[in-house]
Amino acid sequence: MEVAQVLHMNGGVGEASYANNSFVQQKVLCLTKPIREEAITSLFCSTLPKSLAIADLGCSSGPNTLFVVSEVIKIVEKLCQELNHKSPEYKVFLNDLPGNDFNNIFKSLDSFKEKLCHEMETRIGPCYFSGVPGSFYGRVFPNQSLHFVHSSYSLQWLSKVPEGVENNKGNIYIASTSPPNVVRAYYQQFQRDFSHFLNCRAAELVEGGRMVLTILGRRSDNPSSKDGCYIWELMATALNDMVLQGIIKEEQLDSFNIPQYTPSPSEVKLEVMKEGSFAINRVEVSEVNWNPFDDWNALESESGRSESLGDGGYNVAQCMRAVAEPMLVSHFGEAIIQDVFSRYQEILADRMSKEKTEFINVTILLTRKASA
Amino acid sequence: MEVAQVLHMNGGVGEASYANNSFVQQKVLCLTKPIREEAITSLFCSTLPKSLAIADLGCSSGPNTLFVVSEVIKIVEKLCQELNHKSPEYKVFLNDLPGNDFNNIFKSLDSFKEKLCHEMETRIGPCYFSGVPGSFYGRVFPNQSLHFVHSSYSLQWLSKVPEGVENNKGNIYIASTSPPNVVRAYYQQFQRDFSHFLNCRAAELVEGGRMVLTILGRRSDNPSSKDGCYIWELMATALNDMVLQGIIKEEQLDSFNIPQYTPSPSEVKLEVMKEGSFAINRVEVSEVNWNPFDDWNALESESGRSESLGDGGYNVAQCMRAVAEPMLVSHFGEAIIQDVFSRYQEILADRMSKEKTEFINVTILLTRKASA
Repeated sequence: MEVAQVLHMNGGVGEASYANNSFVQQKVLCLTKPIREEAITSLFCSTLPKSLAIADLGCSSGPNTLFVVSEVIKIVEKLCQELNHKSPEYKVFLNDLPGNDFNNIFKSLDSFKEKLCHEMETRIGPCYFSGVPGSFYGRVFPNQSLHFVHSSYSLQWLSKVPEGVENNKGNIYIASTSPPNVVRAYYQQFQRDFSHFLNCRAAELVEGGRMVLTILGRRSDNPSSKDGCYIWELMATALNDMVLQGIIKEEQLDSFNIPQYTPSPSEVKLEVMKEGSFAINRVEVSEVNWNPFDDWNALESESGRSESLGDGGYNVAQCMRAVAEPMLVSHFGEAIIQDVFSRYQEILADRMSKEKTEFINVTILLTRKASA
Repeated sequence: MEVAQVLHMNGGVGEASYANNSFVQQKVLCLTKPIREEAITSLFCSTLPKSLAIADLGCSSGPNTLFVVSEVIKIVEKLCQELNHKSPEYKVFLNDLPGNDFNNIFKSLDSFKEKLCHEMETRIGPCYFSGVPGSFYGRVFPNQSLHFVHSSYSLQWLSKVPEGVENNKGNIYIASTSPPNVVRAYYQQFQRDFSHFLNCRAAELVEGGRMVLTILGRRSDNPSSKDGCYIWELMATALNDMVLQGIIKEEQLDSFNIPQYTPSPSEVKLEVMKEGSFAINRVEVSEVNWNPFDDWNALESESGRSESLGDGGYNVAQCMRAVAEPMLVSHFGEAIIQDVFSRYQEILADRMSKEKTEFINVTILLTRKASA
């Protein structure tokens, strides 16, 4: 499995699309807004740039894609008014792997700009948008061409499935039953990938440039703790059931592993310090319920609106489907997909009714140091 | 009809796709290569830039999209070797309207880069690609951010159907039977659009930056002469036949006009001089047979290969379909498309067997003057 080829969110705007199933990611963006505000404010006030180059890495395609961009522009425009400073020109770079649905983003840009201008009431600086396809585990932008880099819920994806995890039998990610060599292999792949990521971005950011990264992670120091792995363990349960029923071959399941690593805050900090190009301004950990509508339940029932938003199993299964379907299809084929996700939905619903189920978000704010 | 919404080449890679029916456009690129060589050589040798920003406007999606980029990189790398100069970094901007199939381009970039490196034998400078959606009849790039702008077979498209052409009955473009006000309206729309285009590019190009534009045009000074209009007159013939047979309503045909203008060399020069930001280095006129395989016929028949490449009517109809289908669908609906193009194919085949049928290309090389 070539990760760069098969790792992309479900395209389009249909029922199983990422565009329609990215509420968790949206909630996370809302949670981490204060950190971006801090980053942009300090960046802008210290440099008062005429031109502001912003990159969103792993921008995907859906309502979240332009959410951060619009937020950043609003923060800057507000600062310009307060400081009585001319609006900068905005260069917005939207990056994701080449399989991302860029067409969908591009078609939405005109209405996005109109909406933004309408909301702002004042004239805003000229905005130039471009789509930049390519893996962020390599160089994507010219030297010192960016002022602000943002990435949310993307860096947990590794550049590839780590080597030497053949004995991770019955699992599809690190799990409580994974042998130690598997856990080690995953961690080392994260270290290599994240360190290379930092190195590339260090070349692309101007001195003093800021970077805000939110990574799906864990609180615990133990990589096989439940808070980072449980969501995949439950998908593995569905797949194992299908092996038992002869729908999937055992070898097929054994050779499937998710190219992801959910790091702890200290693992993230360690790589930043080892790489050396960035000062760490802030590290925060937050959590979001697997079911993004969990806090709507009471409201929904009272108001008599559709209960479907409160159907946690369905919501979470759809969210995971939008993210994982292309990978599953590439390994197991189209035919089993519906079956996998209806089983998964049931398992999720059951667990969610009995335990507190949350994604953990590690957010870090970095400043590009002056080169030595 | 909102031109920016419906003017795009047929996407994908199927039988009616632009990607599979853009041989004429490819031939034109081959014909105009010497002018790009001249432009790039003079640009590079006069400035020896560390970073070279190239934009292709109206890049479409198909084999031609990256043809010019690869050519420019090869020219520059050769110059670097001759001058013993370090390769620059390349910033490549691919622009087209938001409806263009950018996904298709982006998926082909990795193999394009591999192929280019393989062909070059030497190491080439780092290349950064981005897709930039938007009409070139507006600002698309930041101030002074480009060194070389290229556009081929795009600038004949107007930003909109000119106003005041309601009396162009039975025609879909300027035709020998068009009233004078229609011809005037088309020309004035071209003047406005092209002048605005030049103005925008003048802001985006650095001083000394070069621009090579190839426009589908005409030799004659008369805008309703056959050399610029005939291809659309024959499509109108097909549509009029369908009106006579009651398949299309007369009002529907009367309200359909192609947003295009095929200018003469002097009309192109006049706008450049009026706008004032560019020096004209070269103007050339070339022609290409409607059937891009016309010179293959003898060869094909002898070698016993498929005759289909030599089927001029089919080739030209497919080429025009790849270009015009989205516009026709938007106005007349899906249902008539197959019928239109099989009639068109017959008409084309008949005319091509009796006359010399050629597209006329006007190519102009411009240099951005120093600002006053």
